[in-house]
Amino acid sequence: MKLIEDIRANNPLIHNITNIVVANDSANGLLALGASPFMSSALGEMLEVAAIANATVLNLGTITDELYEAMVIVGQEMNRLGKVVVVDPVGCGATTYRKKTTEALLQTVRPTLIRGNAGEIASLAEVPWGSKGVDSGEGDGDLGEIARIVARKYQCLVALSGSTDVITDGDTTYQLTNGTPYFEKMTGAGCLLSCVCGAFLSQETSVESLLFACGMYAICGEQIANGLPQVQVGTFRKELLDRLSVVTSQEVEALIRYQKESSSTTVG
Amino acid sequence: MKLIEDIRANNPLIHNITNIVVANDSANGLLALGASPFMSSALGEMLEVAAIANATVLNLGTITDELYEAMVIVGQEMNRLGKVVVVDPVGCGATTYRKKTTEALLQTVRPTLIRGNAGEIASLAEVPWGSKGVDSGEGDGDLGEIARIVARKYQCLVALSGSTDVITDGDTTYQLTNGTPYFEKMTGAGCLLSCVCGAFLSQETSVESLLFACGMYAICGEQIANGLPQVQVGTFRKELLDRLSVVTSQEVEALIRYQKESSSTTVG
Amino acid sequence: MKLIEDIRANNPLIHNITNIVVANDSANGLLALGASPFMSSALGEMLEVAAIANATVLNLGTITDELYEAMVIVGQEMNRLGKVVVVDPVGCGATTYRKKTTEALLQTVRPTLIRGNAGEIASLAEVPWGSKGVDSGEGDGDLGEIARIVARKYQCLVALSGSTDVITDGDTTYQLTNGTPYFEKMTGAGCLLSCVCGAFLSQETSVESLLFACGMYAICGEQIANGLPQVQVGTFRKELLDRLSVVTSQEVEALIRYQKESSSTTVG
Repeated sequence: MKLIEDIRANNPLIHNITNIVVANDSANGLLALGASPFMSSALGEMLEVAAIANATVLNLGTITDELYEAMVIVGQEMNRLGKVVVVDPVGCGATTYRKKTTEALLQTVRPTLIRGNAGEIASLAEVPWGSKGVDSGEGDGDLGEIARIVARKYQCLVALSGSTDVITDGDTTYQLTNGTPYFEKMTGAGCLLSCVCGAFLSQETSVESLLFACGMYAICGEQIANGLPQVQVGTFRKELLDRLSVVTSQEVEALIRYQKESSSTTVG
Repeated sequence: MKLIEDIRANNPLIHNITNIVVANDSANGLLALGASPFMSSALGEMLEVAAIANATVLNLGTITDELYEAMVIVGQEMNRLGKVVVVDPVGCGATTYRKKTTEALLQTVRPTLIRGNAGEIASLAEVPWGSKGVDSGEGDGDLGEIARIVARKYQCLVALSGSTDVITDGDTTYQLTNGTPYFEKMTGAGCLLSCVCGAFLSQETSVESLLFACGMYAICGEQIANGLPQVQVGTFRKELLDRLSVVTSQEVEALIRYQKESSSTTVG
Repeated sequence: MKLIEDIRANNPLIHNITNIVVANDSANGLLALGASPFMSSALGEMLEVAAIANATVLNLGTITDELYEAMVIVGQEMNRLGKVVVVDPVGCGATTYRKKTTEALLQTVRPTLIRGNAGEIASLAEVPWGSKGVDSGEGDGDLGEIARIVARKYQCLVALSGSTDVITDGDTTYQLTNGTPYFEKMTGAGCLLSCVCGAFLSQETSVESLLFACGMYAICGEQIANGLPQVQVGTFRKELLDRLSVVTSQEVEALIRYQKESSSTTVG
């Protein structure tokens, strides 16, 4: 796969409706990778934005009624145009408000991908999980099964991020073991990954493209962590943007570690 | 005191209603320290957030009517639950609008702590001060007395940040002399300190805990400044997040410099 | 010119209505330079803010109806007081919504300066241009002429940023050749330049002051890029804030490279 080089050559326009915490890192991360971020939630331009965007990333991190309305307009138009829609259900397991809002969005807009941590995906799967605010929390369900439930429920790709990432289309499932716990110490690391996935899926919409996106991101983090004696949040953040500026598909091919898991489970 | 280690072990959930300028640094700073930030102002989840949060930090940096409403809901519920409420009256001395909004909030929600710079605290004390926008400005009042007036008026802890920090409960007052003027060159340095104070007070609500929090933060800045030939805003910011990731209570105990000041003033 | 030293001595208050993506960098960049940022869009304080601000910077990056209303109040009051108003028409060429909103603002508030990239300025000049989202895009018009059209149309200074910057008052035009393409890889690099221009124009409102501001900024970027083997977004961003903290007018005088272009074109 030459997906990173494709992104740098094609410079896809990735639209984001996101939150005040992570907007800067999300935009800089996309620029570093070679994509072109467009951050807007103005109701008056959502249809026009859908016309020019290659993907839209809907992040529920600090949702309001007005942001929700914008997400519905751009999401439905992207659906109509057959373009990539990524939904990041930030903190979905933390409050019933977030869960209801997220589920309402997912019933209104068809996602190409749902990306979240274990607590967020488990919440959508109706599997009990000890979410803690916007952090993953702890639980002991089968992560592969949890991801597949959500993939089948919403007929979409799912990326469940954690110490092992699970990537699935509901049928084919990959367990990705690259990564570093330092990601959990950087606010918006997951949000940026959702944007990155949007860029990759805009080039090729497949479970393998998604695996490659998550693998690339995990490898970047791993490489930085290897150079740090302990977690240092400021340095990690700076270097993540640096690594995204220079990482190549060849590096990812060489360093990615994953296992394919065949699903024998039937749901519903 | 082993408060830093307590935070890292207990991972308190610190809720923040804050502004577009500092949201990212506030979240990353809390993560670096070992706390778990939750940034939300959605009206629909404020009661639920109060139920799970260990402290809430209400920052008036870019206040709007909707943010104010969210602050009242979460603040009153935290009051009812007996949990920590920190109010950061950003720019309180700069405009009458901000002063009125801040005072209205402080009459509606009982703060555990008010943390601000000299201009902000002097404004709440009704002491004339040359505030300049959101910066401290210059004045020549007795900072200890100014802080005590506000502590007694609102029956709460007060941390007045500056070249010398004043920490008081209206009776016991500490003058903390650690720190560096480089903090004034980093936007949101004070806002992040308010979040940090919330994390410490969630572990132990006392004037000594507050002194320790401010001391730790000042020492981190001091250590970074010692390594820089002159102010460098980008480096200072990165290294502050790095230092918060690794600072220990033992370091703080060793390096903190303060004087206890007995108050002989009676007010009202 | 000793404009940088003037800013550091006078510490002008630069008000900003800006967006969630760039607010932090804009504030830190102004602090690094020696100015005092004030980030607010609260309707209730816009008149008071105009009274104390030395310049206001109106950034249309993530415009909403409420932000627009705030811009009109503060902008008209700054006009009445004869103070500097900078308009940054972010993404003006990307959607008709943005173009209409920007034009409505420019017909309601008289700008001292319009600063944008080629796509944004060409859009205001009604010259066809291949804008791409908020990026400059590509076109082959005469940039000097495009900038002059906008300067004459709105009777203001124009700074068109790109590989060559064009700075004009509609009559005298400078082509500035300092800079680095790395700026395009940092989100909000242009937005911060608008803030920087506001600070310089608050000290001296002239086309030469604007040239000096743009020259200083381009030189800072150039110096950082010279030390990097390739673009590294995280490092570039950190070092830009560092450079702004220490750059001197003497350095700018020594390193600025520009040509004066006499306009022989008459418009209208």
